Amino acid sequence: MNVKHVNAICRATETILESHFGIKVTPLKPSAGNSPIPSNHVSVILGINGQLNGQIICSFSEHTAKAIVGVMMGGIEIEKLDDLSWSAVQEFGNWVAGTTATELSKEECIIDVTPPIVNEGISKYHSSKTFITIPLDTRIGPIEVHISVTE
Amino acid sequence: MNVKHVNAICRATETILESHFGIKVTPLKPSAGNSPIPSNHVSVILGINGQLNGQIICSFSEHTAKAIVGVMMGGIEIEKLDDLSWSAVQEFGNWVAGTTATELSKEECIIDVTPPIVNEGISKYHSSKTFITIPLDTRIGPIEVHISVTE
Repeated sequence: MNVKHVNAICRATETILESHFGIKVTPLKPSAGNSPIPSNHVSVILGINGQLNGQIICSFSEHTAKAIVGVMMGGIEIEKLDDLSWSAVQEFGNWVAGTTATELSKEECIIDVTPPIVNEGISKYHSSKTFITIPLDTRIGPIEVHISVTE
Repeated sequence: MNVKHVNAICRATETILESHFGIKVTPLKPSAGNSPIPSNHVSVILGINGQLNGQIICSFSEHTAKAIVGVMMGGIEIEKLDDLSWSAVQEFGNWVAGTTATELSKEECIIDVTPPIVNEGISKYHSSKTFITIPLDTRIGPIEVHISVTE
């Protein structure tokens, strides 16, 4: 994977959290491998086609999902993730998708991103392709960005 | 969703199972809705971009996954889904992806399909977009094809 592309994808999620949510993000040490990716209770899956092909998966805890939805709904406290909340998590994915396409276009890389789909539950993602995982530390809990794209 | 596209996508999975696996497929009554989609223990996610955008998710039980892998490996019995098996399930997804693109091109619909990713575990997929679910009855167990694509 091209480090410029990985950085651009990662920058997209950071930008959303910092500029839209006002949440400071500290990227921690990335890791790479072929081990299964834990879904971490809530995961947003984006499919990438175009000059790159693959997936971006953002995963976080139920607690962090509630915090994201709460901020999106104007600062309210979310007690339970209902249908409206899941729709907001999907919309968060849409923001990440749009910003990812923009950040990659700055690197002269044109992609299409699928509408996001949100997975709820404890599960694992298997792929024979390498994933790079970038953990983001935030005050609403850790958010992991898993990236697997090939040219 | 255009019924021609849904039929083409569904035909792709049927074709793979019948011609590559020699497994007779009986499509059961489709359903449509916005309810969460159960992952059914093993699910293969394909992202679609191009003239259509969305996802195809094929879900089945662990038992059916073992049977699919067993057939792919030349008719052996699979006791446990190990790394090699997950890679075979992903390859099954690749076959479905390729055949889906071919079947849709016959309807003059050109798409790109992401490399498949395989989810293991009991989880649910949330989307505000409508999914059409086509249950396929086979001797190796039920396989559900969930389709959500928009033009």
